[in-house]
Amino acid sequence: MPYMSVMPTLLVGANVNGKPNYMTAAWATVACMAPPMVCVAINKARYTARGIEENKTFSLNVPSAKHVVETDHCGLVSGAHEDKSKVFKTFFGSLPTAPLAEECPVNIECRLFTTVDCGSHMLYIGEVVEVHVDRKCVTDGKPDLAKIDPIVYAQMTYWQVGKQAGKAFAVGKEFGK
Amino acid sequence: MPYMSVMPTLLVGANVNGKPNYMTAAWATVACMAPPMVCVAINKARYTARGIEENKTFSLNVPSAKHVVETDHCGLVSGAHEDKSKVFKTFFGSLPTAPLAEECPVNIECRLFTTVDCGSHMLYIGEVVEVHVDRKCVTDGKPDLAKIDPIVYAQMTYWQVGKQAGKAFAVGKEFGK
Repeated sequence: MPYMSVMPTLLVGANVNGKPNYMTAAWATVACMAPPMVCVAINKARYTARGIEENKTFSLNVPSAKHVVETDHCGLVSGAHEDKSKVFKTFFGSLPTAPLAEECPVNIECRLFTTVDCGSHMLYIGEVVEVHVDRKCVTDGKPDLAKIDPIVYAQMTYWQVGKQAGKAFAVGKEFGK
Repeated sequence: MPYMSVMPTLLVGANVNGKPNYMTAAWATVACMAPPMVCVAINKARYTARGIEENKTFSLNVPSAKHVVETDHCGLVSGAHEDKSKVFKTFFGSLPTAPLAEECPVNIECRLFTTVDCGSHMLYIGEVVEVHVDRKCVTDGKPDLAKIDPIVYAQMTYWQVGKQAGKAFAVGKEFGK
């Protein structure tokens, strides 16, 4: 297994055969700032891959720790065998084929930019069309980590974010002092 | 800014003009399982990008929370203006141009597989050539999260991993019960 220390736990939303489907994923990150892009690696055999190929759209949804059961369920069960369209309430934003999970405090709508065939997995790179954040999880106009309470994935386990280790672009100023 | 809930804090190692250089990065993830691949998004203007383009190799290094100052320093300062080759002790594995930071408990050597031009950032996808894990951070033959003590990046802040929220591929079995 290619090692990565900690990862975000996300739900990839895609319409497959005209129905919303959500798949748990951790192999995702930001791919570009301008224009804003994200990427996610998905096994070619996955049901979700079909939907992305079909519609050229997908979503990334950030679940809260309180939805860890629903989130893990979407990684245990394939949409090919079980209808997962009702695990979360679905809404749509700008893209009519990128289903968004209402219970998740952050939803990112993406239009497929390009696909890289890496072997077992396709890397889907998507341009961010819109980001939806639950009003209850916003502080001073920004998404609030403590209110979102996202799930960290590491070592086959879900974790909450812990203690602060330092401010970025700040704590490094102490270097050499 | 494209939103991503939580991200790993990593150091990208690259030889630039024949010297090791380390850059702090959080926009990285696993890109493929077979063959094992990782990807990292780097601003085109960055010094590190030059080294990757030149040698077609790079490394991802996982720093521990105790090295948060050195880690943040590598994100504050560009190798174009300051020699960062001595911030960490460097060693080399299989690839003679992928410098590895000795203080980091995990080091991943990568050979560039392909590059995607996303706009402001290049997405570098690398095939994992070797993974080095500090013996002191291994339990039962596997990297041990508690011993590695990696740094989570979110909301312009570094964090430690917190409380367990559930076992992956397990807690979801409670769904619908």
